[in-house]
Amino acid sequence: MGMEPLNDEYYMRLALQLASAAAGQTGINPVVGCVLVKDGRIVGMGAHLKRGEAHAEIHALQMAGREAEGSTAYVTLEPCSHHGRTPPCSDRLIREGVKRIVVAATDPNPLVAGSGLDRLRAHGIEVTSGLLEREANLLNEAFNKFITTRRPFVTVKSASTLDGKIAAKTGDSKWITGGASRARVHAMRHRHQAIMVGIGTVLADDPALTTRLEVPGLNPIRVVVDSTLRLPPSAQLVRDGAAPTVVLTTERAPEARRRELEALGVEVVDCGPGPVVDLDAALDRLGEREIGSLLVEGGGKLSGALLEQRLADKLVLFYAPRIIGGGALAPGNFDFAGFGAMQDAIRLERFSVEQVGDDVCITGYPRYEREVQ
Amino acid sequence: MGMEPLNDEYYMRLALQLASAAAGQTGINPVVGCVLVKDGRIVGMGAHLKRGEAHAEIHALQMAGREAEGSTAYVTLEPCSHHGRTPPCSDRLIREGVKRIVVAATDPNPLVAGSGLDRLRAHGIEVTSGLLEREANLLNEAFNKFITTRRPFVTVKSASTLDGKIAAKTGDSKWITGGASRARVHAMRHRHQAIMVGIGTVLADDPALTTRLEVPGLNPIRVVVDSTLRLPPSAQLVRDGAAPTVVLTTERAPEARRRELEALGVEVVDCGPGPVVDLDAALDRLGEREIGSLLVEGGGKLSGALLEQRLADKLVLFYAPRIIGGGALAPGNFDFAGFGAMQDAIRLERFSVEQVGDDVCITGYPRYEREVQ
Repeated sequence: MGMEPLNDEYYMRLALQLASAAAGQTGINPVVGCVLVKDGRIVGMGAHLKRGEAHAEIHALQMAGREAEGSTAYVTLEPCSHHGRTPPCSDRLIREGVKRIVVAATDPNPLVAGSGLDRLRAHGIEVTSGLLEREANLLNEAFNKFITTRRPFVTVKSASTLDGKIAAKTGDSKWITGGASRARVHAMRHRHQAIMVGIGTVLADDPALTTRLEVPGLNPIRVVVDSTLRLPPSAQLVRDGAAPTVVLTTERAPEARRRELEALGVEVVDCGPGPVVDLDAALDRLGEREIGSLLVEGGGKLSGALLEQRLADKLVLFYAPRIIGGGALAPGNFDFAGFGAMQDAIRLERFSVEQVGDDVCITGYPRYEREVQ
Repeated sequence: MGMEPLNDEYYMRLALQLASAAAGQTGINPVVGCVLVKDGRIVGMGAHLKRGEAHAEIHALQMAGREAEGSTAYVTLEPCSHHGRTPPCSDRLIREGVKRIVVAATDPNPLVAGSGLDRLRAHGIEVTSGLLEREANLLNEAFNKFITTRRPFVTVKSASTLDGKIAAKTGDSKWITGGASRARVHAMRHRHQAIMVGIGTVLADDPALTTRLEVPGLNPIRVVVDSTLRLPPSAQLVRDGAAPTVVLTTERAPEARRRELEALGVEVVDCGPGPVVDLDAALDRLGEREIGSLLVEGGGKLSGALLEQRLADKLVLFYAPRIIGGGALAPGNFDFAGFGAMQDAIRLERFSVEQVGDDVCITGYPRYEREVQ
């Protein structure tokens, strides 16, 4: 930050960095950062670190102690004004004598948005809002969807060759992308509440779907899409106890297997009559369980189905600099019926391209132009 | 260039820029740039602009006039010392009294490499060689292959969606990539001696395969891979006279159609007994016609076959930020039998990634790990 001018934006960027650092460890809660500045010095910094524990403002006020009085607070999200698991932050900011508050994003709940700021203003605090709002909303894109729809934000990740293949015609897929990309994916797992795969992937690879990094990370809830409960009780996901496992199935699932898996601690959730799992209903079921962010690492069929049903919110596509060939025998990254006209193809908006190790990563937000016919 | 230090590299980069500007307009000849510097001032600049006409050094010496005496010449390629279509440049440099010569790349012909420099040294000229050699060789990568193998340098271009499709399942492909990418492709056409497509593309689209830019460009020779001479005499490629058209076929081609096309000015070239065109032989035939650079804009089958037979030297892959789906019904960018193991996949070396308009362009050089089984 060395040469940057000191101004509101400078301190807000710092608050956003504090918020961003806690991504993945606040569960269904948003990430929030707060910086308190008085007489040209930072007197307090804080972030919300864990659901049920102190909000960012409280940590920062704690650090500032008596210096909080007369300070300016930079907060990435509008301070709460309601009694949740903790008392309202706006009361505490008022009580500590904060003079001015700069806020990036207002509360994403349209029923609440701005009311916290009104309360602060009513107590004579100068309020500025909307600074770096886009950046702040991006940090909480999953939370913002969940809080308005009660459904998880769905990120579909794939790793393919330059000809769009996720495996050779023999099924071999180890490894497509390099170590740097795989480390990225594990960091993504840390930052999501749940990870989803199809039963085909489980039967083929028996994956743990845990977060494996150079340092300990948080494991997401494992979600398996399995219309007829083929999940073997011997699977790592069932046995290792590393994180909860939820199986999404249909009413066609055999009752005995259901009881067997439940006895082993697996949560079995019905999503429609079948024959396939109703993915739209599945997102409702996951939302009911307060899962706000879902990382899909399924194969081409699951990824394709999510696109086809317009359920994917974000795509993160890794490409290895390889060409494997194999035509229809080698599975593609998005396997679905598809569109008849190029103009109707799903478009990636606000996309970015980045080189990751020897691979390329393309990220964006699908815009669904037209129904798949 | 404003803040750069003045040194040998500075002037050689300028010479490389002059060379690069002429890319595409020297036919089978290499591009070469030359800068003459005396007493801290540029006194001459030149580039080889057209086959059979003056070399870069001659243009620069012409511009310098009597200032050439005692100057330093920066040349991107070793000056020629043999009588070709023009007299040897090394003689002229000696005669004009150039004091020092800095060369980037030596002659790619191993029988000649360095002999021109020896000749200059023998006349008391100080010679430095190898400065920015890699950059200079990259400029002439096609020429360097041709001059050592008598076969064209093959660049395979594709434009696909993020799921690797070059058309929808209906065949619709207009447009996959955006205007910026298409403008790039037309500039690539200008810089290649020939462009190759499969007969399927001709029958489907009746393309002109000409160079269409905001300014006039040079049209490449059109090469059609057509094992049984299905090329209709009514095709644009046959009728428009915009550039020569060569059809690569097999001994199975019907004699009557052959005569009909030849009467219309099309060159028909046999490449093996069939059933398909022998692509390896085809490169020999094109080389015999002094085609040193070939841009392949064929479909997935032609591109796949060139990879499978290890004939592609470079890949330029455009990706539009779209996903079209369609499974096996939608054609892929590289359609070939492929490899059984991911480790054996063709690897792209020295690859680069770039955003072009709304698209992504990945360029690299295939390294063939293993035979396709």
